[in-house]
Amino acid sequence: MQTVDHVHLSEDEKELIILDQTQLPNRRIYLRLRSREELFRAIKELQVRGAPAIGIFAGFAMYVLAQQYSREEFLSRFREDAAYLNSSRPTAVNLSWALRRMTRTAEESGGDLHALRAECQTILDEDIAMCTAISEHGLSLLKEGDGVLTHCNAGPIATSRYGTAIGPILMAQERGIRLRAFCDETRPLLQGARLTSWELQNAGVDTTLICDNMAATVMSQGKIQFCFVGCDRVAANGDTANKIGTYGVAILAKHFGIPFYVLGPSSTIDMACATGKDIPVELREADEIRSKWYREPMAPEGVKCYNPSFDVTDHSLISGIITEKGICRPPYTESLKALFE
Amino acid sequence: MQTVDHVHLSEDEKELIILDQTQLPNRRIYLRLRSREELFRAIKELQVRGAPAIGIFAGFAMYVLAQQYSREEFLSRFREDAAYLNSSRPTAVNLSWALRRMTRTAEESGGDLHALRAECQTILDEDIAMCTAISEHGLSLLKEGDGVLTHCNAGPIATSRYGTAIGPILMAQERGIRLRAFCDETRPLLQGARLTSWELQNAGVDTTLICDNMAATVMSQGKIQFCFVGCDRVAANGDTANKIGTYGVAILAKHFGIPFYVLGPSSTIDMACATGKDIPVELREADEIRSKWYREPMAPEGVKCYNPSFDVTDHSLISGIITEKGICRPPYTESLKALFE
Repeated sequence: MQTVDHVHLSEDEKELIILDQTQLPNRRIYLRLRSREELFRAIKELQVRGAPAIGIFAGFAMYVLAQQYSREEFLSRFREDAAYLNSSRPTAVNLSWALRRMTRTAEESGGDLHALRAECQTILDEDIAMCTAISEHGLSLLKEGDGVLTHCNAGPIATSRYGTAIGPILMAQERGIRLRAFCDETRPLLQGARLTSWELQNAGVDTTLICDNMAATVMSQGKIQFCFVGCDRVAANGDTANKIGTYGVAILAKHFGIPFYVLGPSSTIDMACATGKDIPVELREADEIRSKWYREPMAPEGVKCYNPSFDVTDHSLISGIITEKGICRPPYTESLKALFE
Repeated sequence: MQTVDHVHLSEDEKELIILDQTQLPNRRIYLRLRSREELFRAIKELQVRGAPAIGIFAGFAMYVLAQQYSREEFLSRFREDAAYLNSSRPTAVNLSWALRRMTRTAEESGGDLHALRAECQTILDEDIAMCTAISEHGLSLLKEGDGVLTHCNAGPIATSRYGTAIGPILMAQERGIRLRAFCDETRPLLQGARLTSWELQNAGVDTTLICDNMAATVMSQGKIQFCFVGCDRVAANGDTANKIGTYGVAILAKHFGIPFYVLGPSSTIDMACATGKDIPVELREADEIRSKWYREPMAPEGVKCYNPSFDVTDHSLISGIITEKGICRPPYTESLKALFE
C-alpha cells in the first residue's frame, strides 16, 4: 500500500497524521488529527495546503471521521462533516471533488468502512500516478541548463510525490539533468521561500530564491526559459486560479516571450466553471500582510489591506496546461473538453 | 530658512539629526550624527533613504564634517570624505550629484564654511521647490476618484516635502480632491508598507496596502487609473532605475493600458548614462530576503538568494517623466535633452 509521509493514517487508522507546513522550514512537526474541528482547522490554517494534497487529506479525513459515526446516523453525519470540511477553503476544486468521491462511496456502499478506506487510498494512489505522469510530460519540454521560474509551492508536500509545477525539476534532478530553479517567495504566506526552496534544496537542485517583484529582472536577464506553476482550479476555457501573483508572472512571461505552463491533475479542471469569472476567490485577513511572521507589525495600525489568496490567469497567457494525460494547447475550450471524452 | 523635520541640523549645527526610517512605522526615533562613519552608515543602512533625501542629507553631512577640518588639510579631507560617502550606495545619482556640488563650492570658496552652509541649504530649498512643482504637474493628470498605484516610497521622507511619486496624491488631499492610493508593500525592505502607507494614512488619504504580487489583480479590476513611481537614476534615453519591482509594475501597466509615470527632480536624470545598461545596480545581502524582520528565518539556511536593490524600467514602458520643469514625453532622447538646454 502506497503512503506519503506528509499526510498519512496512524497505525490504528483512527487518526490522520500530517506534517505541519506552517512550521517549515524551521521545524518538522507532525500533527495527529481526529476531530472534525481539528481537521477543518488544518485546512483553514494551511497546516495542510496545496490543492492535490488537500484532496488527499480530505479523503483520509472523511475515513477517520466515518469510524466515529454510529450506524443510524452514518450518512447524515457523513454528509454534514463533508459539507463542513468543504467550507474551509473555497477556491481549490480538489477539496470538494475528493469530498464528493468519498460521499458517493459512502452512499453507494451503505456506509461500508472498507469501501471508504479503499476510496481514500485510491485518491492517493491516483495522485501519485498523476504527479509522475505530469512530471514526465513537463520534463519532455526541458533540456540541461534551462532556468525554470515557479511561484508558490506545487511540490511533493502540496501533492503526493514529485509535485506538479516542480515535479519536472525534481524528476530531472533524479535523472542527472541539471536545471536552475528560481522560486518566487510568494507573499504574504511565503510558500515559495518556506516550502519550494526547501524542497528543491533538499533534492540538491540549483535553487535561487527571489522576491516576487524580482521576476521581471531575472526574466530580462535571460535566466528563465520556462515558467511552471500549479493550479487550484482551471475553468473550461483555460482560465486558471492559482496562488496570488501567478497572473502577474504570466503577464511578465508573455512580455518577455517566455513559455508559461500550468501543471495539475485533471481533477483540478472544473468543466462546470465556464470561465475564470465563475471561480470564487478567497479573501484573507489583513494581518497576513501587516504583521504575520514579523517581530513587530510592518505596516501602520489599522491600514486597509487587500489580501486575495488567489488570482485568475487569463487563458490567453497560458502556453499549455499539463495534466497526467498530456499537454493541452489552446484553444482550451476544445483541448480541455477532449480530456473528459 | 526652510527646514524639514526628517533631515535637519542641530541647533549648534555641529550635528545632523535624522528620523531613523528603519524604525518606522513603529517608532519615531531621531539619530544625531557627527562622524563620517555614522554618516556613511546612515545611508548604507537606509536610516536615511530616497534618492532626493540622500542628496539633501549628503549636503548637510559635508557641512557637518567640514567644520571638523583644519585649514591645512581642508580640501584634501573634504574630497576624501565626499568620496567615502559616495561609496555608500551606488545607484542613486543624487548622492554623487550633491557631493559634487558641495565639493565644487568648497574648492571655489577656498573652504569657506558660510558658502558651504549656503550651498547645502540651497540643495534643500531647491528640492522643496522641485517637489512642489513635480506634485503640481502630476496632479494636473488626476481627477476625483482616480486610483493611483505606487511602488516603494517616494514621499516626503524620501525627499523634502510632498515627495515625488506620492506628491500629487498628498497635494490633491490638501485641495479636497479625493483619490484612492494603492501601495505595493515593496519587498524585501517593505518601504511601501512601512513608509508610504504610513505617510498616506497620516495625511488622511484613502490607502490600500497590497503585496507586490497583487498589482496585476487590482489593475485587472479597474481600480488603477495611474501608476506613479519615483526614480533613483534616469538615463538619457529615459530608461529608469528605481526600486526593485518597478519594472514589473510598468510591464503590468502596459498590459492593462494604464499610464505609467516616473516622477523625480531633474537632478535624477543622468545625461552621462546613455541607457539603463550604464546604470550600476546595487546587490544586497541574502538575509534581507531570508530573515530580516522575521521572528525566525523564512527560508532554509544557506539557500541562494538574488537580491538586486533596483531594476531598470525600459523607456518604452514609460508614459511620461515628470520633473519640476513639466512632463517629458517620448522620445526621451529629445525631451530629456531639451530640459538641460
